[in-house]
Amino acid sequence: MIDMLLEHPGQYISGEEISRRLAISRTAVWKQIAKLRDEGYEFESAPRRGYRLIRKPDKIAHSALARALEGRALFGRQIRLLERTVSTQAEVRELAEAGAPSGTLVVAEEQTGGRGRQGRAWYSPPGKGVWMSLLLRPDRQPLSFAPQLTLLIAVAVCRAVRRAAGVDAGIKWPNDLLVHGRKLCGILVESVGEDELIRYAIAGIGIDVNLEAEDIPEELQDVATSLYIESGRRIDRAELIGMVLAELEQLYELYIQEGFAPIGHLWEALSVTLGQRVTVKTPAGDVSGLATALDPSGALVLAEDDGNMRTIFSGEVQIGG
Amino acid sequence: MIDMLLEHPGQYISGEEISRRLAISRTAVWKQIAKLRDEGYEFESAPRRGYRLIRKPDKIAHSALARALEGRALFGRQIRLLERTVSTQAEVRELAEAGAPSGTLVVAEEQTGGRGRQGRAWYSPPGKGVWMSLLLRPDRQPLSFAPQLTLLIAVAVCRAVRRAAGVDAGIKWPNDLLVHGRKLCGILVESVGEDELIRYAIAGIGIDVNLEAEDIPEELQDVATSLYIESGRRIDRAELIGMVLAELEQLYELYIQEGFAPIGHLWEALSVTLGQRVTVKTPAGDVSGLATALDPSGALVLAEDDGNMRTIFSGEVQIGG
Repeated sequence: MIDMLLEHPGQYISGEEISRRLAISRTAVWKQIAKLRDEGYEFESAPRRGYRLIRKPDKIAHSALARALEGRALFGRQIRLLERTVSTQAEVRELAEAGAPSGTLVVAEEQTGGRGRQGRAWYSPPGKGVWMSLLLRPDRQPLSFAPQLTLLIAVAVCRAVRRAAGVDAGIKWPNDLLVHGRKLCGILVESVGEDELIRYAIAGIGIDVNLEAEDIPEELQDVATSLYIESGRRIDRAELIGMVLAELEQLYELYIQEGFAPIGHLWEALSVTLGQRVTVKTPAGDVSGLATALDPSGALVLAEDDGNMRTIFSGEVQIGG
Repeated sequence: MIDMLLEHPGQYISGEEISRRLAISRTAVWKQIAKLRDEGYEFESAPRRGYRLIRKPDKIAHSALARALEGRALFGRQIRLLERTVSTQAEVRELAEAGAPSGTLVVAEEQTGGRGRQGRAWYSPPGKGVWMSLLLRPDRQPLSFAPQLTLLIAVAVCRAVRRAAGVDAGIKWPNDLLVHGRKLCGILVESVGEDELIRYAIAGIGIDVNLEAEDIPEELQDVATSLYIESGRRIDRAELIGMVLAELEQLYELYIQEGFAPIGHLWEALSVTLGQRVTVKTPAGDVSGLATALDPSGALVLAEDDGNMRTIFSGEVQIGG
């Protein structure tokens, strides 16, 4: 029903028309409106004219999420929407161990202990971001390919935020999303392998969506941004989640069918790292050079000043140096 | 003290001598003997002549395990010895998530729900085998290298059982240990990665040590064996654990310092797969060919009949085909 009201925002639709079109009783219409109000939708109602939607909720509504995920064959078929949790990643880990199917998604309004790469805190205030984790159970994929999944997730999220908000987001190797050099989104893929195979992977995705400048902690002001800050628009988070999962599902199918090559090309096209002089902090010390390519495993290839090529499997990249 | 008695099995050593050599009171000697008896050691004692060891316990004694692991710098510094558990792998997983250090070892006399590759049951009866799991936290190792760890563990265990029991054990790719074509040992490495790095790995090792033919379930008679069946000797399990961990520690240090190449060579030398015609069940169907080499990532390289080389990242190998 919400679709009918959403298609005509600000416009009255009569209860009678809703009842007729959906072939439900007037009482059922009234009950559904009451349920939507509980979820934070606000309607004006007037005798004879009916209902009109005047405000969508700040919260992600179950119904909106279900609508945004309609048509997804794989991802988001099982959804848990939480008001608050320590970490969506930990929630999915528990579900995974209990046998949850591939595509299980946990979304939280707020994380109290969100984590980024290397155990760093990830600030996840209520109601302003997309904080979610998705369970993937690839069928007999080699564990050595797991880092490729990390890059795939970055490509999917990057494409989705560009489409949703029109921002000029790019990817810093391996999976930071930046706009104008500031971080918009953190991605963390945890993989659990058994011998040479991936048992499951959990993609943790944190997108700063509707945070305003004053929502961003002092110490992150120069390094973090949000879709709202960059685009000047409020983004519907349920719709954004739908777009992310649509991109993810499409790229994942491509990956399973064609392997990493097409994903690698998409990554390269969105990269802000390639073609730059970079310094990478590695276990063996700092390495500087020109970032030239992604290797077939997803590692970063640097051309050092002496002409040697160096393959970087892990490390923190800084542009310049 | 047990060392003194073990060095002279069947021979009496007087309480007075023990007391003098260890500089402890006679009462302390008596207390230690009582403690060892609790652990299953049997002593004969005679007035004036003292004590002599007549039977070592069937159980792995804490003291024997501590002695066998003496001198290990990394592995087995933290030990949990359990009478019975569902799975040592699950025990270590829990300890790992709680922050246990690298080298933490859990050994069980019996597993009630031991698992092998691909969720298959692993038969782990009480008192007859080595059922254990070891936590590894490699420092900033790429996740794409995790399958190499699986091969490293296989090499270490293979070398240890050959040394301990003089059996002609070999490795079937990736990590089954066979003697005369029958399985002696199962290895399962679970890896947990974060983006492109290994967060931790748990090496599960099950060795059929003192199982007699009648201890092996009917349906496994043709495919399973034990060190006892192959060598005719009872093997001290605590000493075997010590040997496995000594090999593991040595190879792990070699791996961290020199990379996979030397481990790969050791693996190839112990392999029963290379040089054989094999059939591999892969996700894409059966592949047959001559197993020719290990690639640098630890994958198996097959020469197919049409001359093409094929890299196998995962699959179940059958010799022949």
